[in-house]
Amino acid sequence: MSSSTSHFIEGIENILGKKNVLLDQEKLHHHLVERRGRFNSETLCVALPSCVEELSELVRFCQTHSLPIVPQGGNTGVCGGAVSKLDSVIVNTKRMNRIRNIDPSGYTIEAEAGVILADLQVAANECGRYFPLSLGAQGSCHIGGNLATNAGGVNVLRYGNARDLVLGIEAVLANGEIWNGLNTLRKNNTGYDLKNLFIGAEGTLGIISAAVFKLFPAPIHQSTALIAVESIKKAVELFSKTRQETSDFASSFELMSRYCIDSALRNIPECKDFFEQPYPWYVLLELGDSTSDGFCQQLNERFLEQAFTDELILDAVLAASSTQAQQMWRLREAIVETQLYEGASIKSDVSVPLLAIEPFIETAQNKVQSMIPGVRCFVYGHVGDGNIHFNMSQPEDTNSEAFFEKWWEVTDAIHSITDELNGSFSAEHGIGLLKTRDMARYKPPVEIKLMQSIKSALDPNNILNPGKVLPPVE
Amino acid sequence: MSSSTSHFIEGIENILGKKNVLLDQEKLHHHLVERRGRFNSETLCVALPSCVEELSELVRFCQTHSLPIVPQGGNTGVCGGAVSKLDSVIVNTKRMNRIRNIDPSGYTIEAEAGVILADLQVAANECGRYFPLSLGAQGSCHIGGNLATNAGGVNVLRYGNARDLVLGIEAVLANGEIWNGLNTLRKNNTGYDLKNLFIGAEGTLGIISAAVFKLFPAPIHQSTALIAVESIKKAVELFSKTRQETSDFASSFELMSRYCIDSALRNIPECKDFFEQPYPWYVLLELGDSTSDGFCQQLNERFLEQAFTDELILDAVLAASSTQAQQMWRLREAIVETQLYEGASIKSDVSVPLLAIEPFIETAQNKVQSMIPGVRCFVYGHVGDGNIHFNMSQPEDTNSEAFFEKWWEVTDAIHSITDELNGSFSAEHGIGLLKTRDMARYKPPVEIKLMQSIKSALDPNNILNPGKVLPPVE
Repeated sequence: MSSSTSHFIEGIENILGKKNVLLDQEKLHHHLVERRGRFNSETLCVALPSCVEELSELVRFCQTHSLPIVPQGGNTGVCGGAVSKLDSVIVNTKRMNRIRNIDPSGYTIEAEAGVILADLQVAANECGRYFPLSLGAQGSCHIGGNLATNAGGVNVLRYGNARDLVLGIEAVLANGEIWNGLNTLRKNNTGYDLKNLFIGAEGTLGIISAAVFKLFPAPIHQSTALIAVESIKKAVELFSKTRQETSDFASSFELMSRYCIDSALRNIPECKDFFEQPYPWYVLLELGDSTSDGFCQQLNERFLEQAFTDELILDAVLAASSTQAQQMWRLREAIVETQLYEGASIKSDVSVPLLAIEPFIETAQNKVQSMIPGVRCFVYGHVGDGNIHFNMSQPEDTNSEAFFEKWWEVTDAIHSITDELNGSFSAEHGIGLLKTRDMARYKPPVEIKLMQSIKSALDPNNILNPGKVLPPVE
Repeated sequence: MSSSTSHFIEGIENILGKKNVLLDQEKLHHHLVERRGRFNSETLCVALPSCVEELSELVRFCQTHSLPIVPQGGNTGVCGGAVSKLDSVIVNTKRMNRIRNIDPSGYTIEAEAGVILADLQVAANECGRYFPLSLGAQGSCHIGGNLATNAGGVNVLRYGNARDLVLGIEAVLANGEIWNGLNTLRKNNTGYDLKNLFIGAEGTLGIISAAVFKLFPAPIHQSTALIAVESIKKAVELFSKTRQETSDFASSFELMSRYCIDSALRNIPECKDFFEQPYPWYVLLELGDSTSDGFCQQLNERFLEQAFTDELILDAVLAASSTQAQQMWRLREAIVETQLYEGASIKSDVSVPLLAIEPFIETAQNKVQSMIPGVRCFVYGHVGDGNIHFNMSQPEDTNSEAFFEKWWEVTDAIHSITDELNGSFSAEHGIGLLKTRDMARYKPPVEIKLMQSIKSALDPNNILNPGKVLPPVE
């Protein structure tokens, strides 16, 4: 360790206490591991502030000494946003994990950045309310990370992205100053919308230390249906109709190809088919209401009857019990799992406008087939968000290395098709390190320049998560 | 006219054509009138670009010659955001009024800044969809102005502010470059949220030239009820319960004091009382659904029965016909009108957290009574948004001049009470020129500094709506 390094570490230890500055490899491991193994992460140390004041002092110290900072929550991101270099301090929020306030009448909750998403959900439930952000990593991801990446998840259709759930934030700026923007108001038109600038900026403009979230009425009743449709086009039509005819009550509208279902039925023992014959495409539709008596089942039933009469759907099963609803969801979730049994896979995170879903899937399937003959496409996703999981499993009886060599080429092809259809190359995972190249490729230069000028204004010495989000300046 | 002035005007005429540069006083009048008569407006000329390319060229010209620009839509704002000085060019969007695209299946509409709000609503209706932004000035305000000020209006409870209705925008930057951010996607996590930075910035960071808006299922059925409650506290409790028990189906939840009702009954002939006895407070509740069969009336009925059993409400009338519903709304709207019969009035635009509504009203009433004995308070508003109209009419048998002399003093007192309760001194009207003083007073210096650094980054020569939103740099 060089003398300047030990000087830096001593300075940080003075602020946080020795035990809150991690140095030994074993303790660092969890903070350096990169979930999909795409990047190597190193660090000067992992710093664990316990409150916003400590975080503020720490950032001020790093600014003074030009030490780069990598903000980190549960380290569950998949684009390398929390990957660090040896000269950088990882600032992990796990000790900043207090729920500061819950107001069930006002439907708000204020929590620090290090609160685990699942804990926030529980806190809301315990007072009879609902916090809708929900995603695979919810048992370990921090809400600070969810905000930094504007997380999506399974409830976007009805409740929006992480951004849409926020009323106010508190953030530590690059110079260490604390900005208290913990607004709880639904209407407040006093100046620029700074909140949304920090949300989704992946820690490059400031470190979100706490936030006030909206809560919602707890959904009590669900009505779940598995629906067979002839084509993607019909599924998209059905979705438009669903919004109107269920008064925007759908909380899920999931598309699945027969290929996905077949694989799930083959590989996951507890999966069952709900129909006597196979159909080309399926939709899992769920409505929910929060009233004492419930009305969503009746609404769903009437809607599906009409859709059948209108020849929009081929068949449908309305879950008669929560067990049956769970079996339907098991089928949907099994699609993620079943790909593990199908060899190596290349995944994407794209979105396209609703009417572009069909051309996107068709064009992408043809394109990747031409690039990797025999490749098997797992196509499913959230229709309402235009967020299609277009995943590819290696051709049968080939080796995975040859398949993975095509990773960039195939990914570029998919992003390029997405772009031509006015879609997005990152629907919900963000940019991190992984997609800065795509930023340079698909974003108009004027937009990149705008972002760079904001970055320079808010973090002139580029100490906040350097190298992330923005493409390198040439 | 000085030679430099005529040189500027000639340059602008070369870009837009002579007839699209207004100079004579008669034509200027509409653009210079300030709605509440608080400011004097002058201008070098009013420029009327017809498309984003012309707007871009115009801004480039103004930037080159350091000509200040005042962007203007329907000129219906009440905070002086479109007020101009003699050295400034008013850039009015009225010729940029094309609806570029409607996608009813995808529930989106793309429109230029100069489209009149009511026209956008009609365009949505004509394809069976709904655009929920709705406010008093909708027959003349431009959607560009609505975005610049992040307009609120009567549907915020269910659909959010103008900001929440936007998927993407196109804007002309201070150097004349066009940023095409016309995203139509619900999920798109690719870099900083620039869109929300321009929305609500009142034209100080760029000029919004077009936007893609979300559309919604057309509401078909409404269920309207007039409800009598004992206190503000009960009204707030009822609101919390309404969210849960109607699955967030309320589109309106309007509080009205008996004093307001009395005045309306006295002054507006077609108003009628719905109850046999007076009650201290009233709530106008409306639910809506978009299904073929309708279910909101049944939902409302069950909810009100339960609320009565729980002693949350004193009495309620559920409208049995649309005529009866209209009569209830007439009563609510009459409160705005009846104040005209009660002499001079001082109005406010504040919001407070839900649980602070009661203390706010009580404290503010006591305070203004102590400042102006005999002042009559008209208290009503949107409970769900915490947006309370706290309006004061002059004491009976006094003169209005003495009353108006108290304008700033009384307004400051109300803003100060609001601030102590973590409320906002501008719920929906924005800052403009009128409230820059409040910005300096109530916003933390760190927030002002953040805004200023963004302003400097995006408009370094301060040509975009100078003097608006931000307090003057000292």
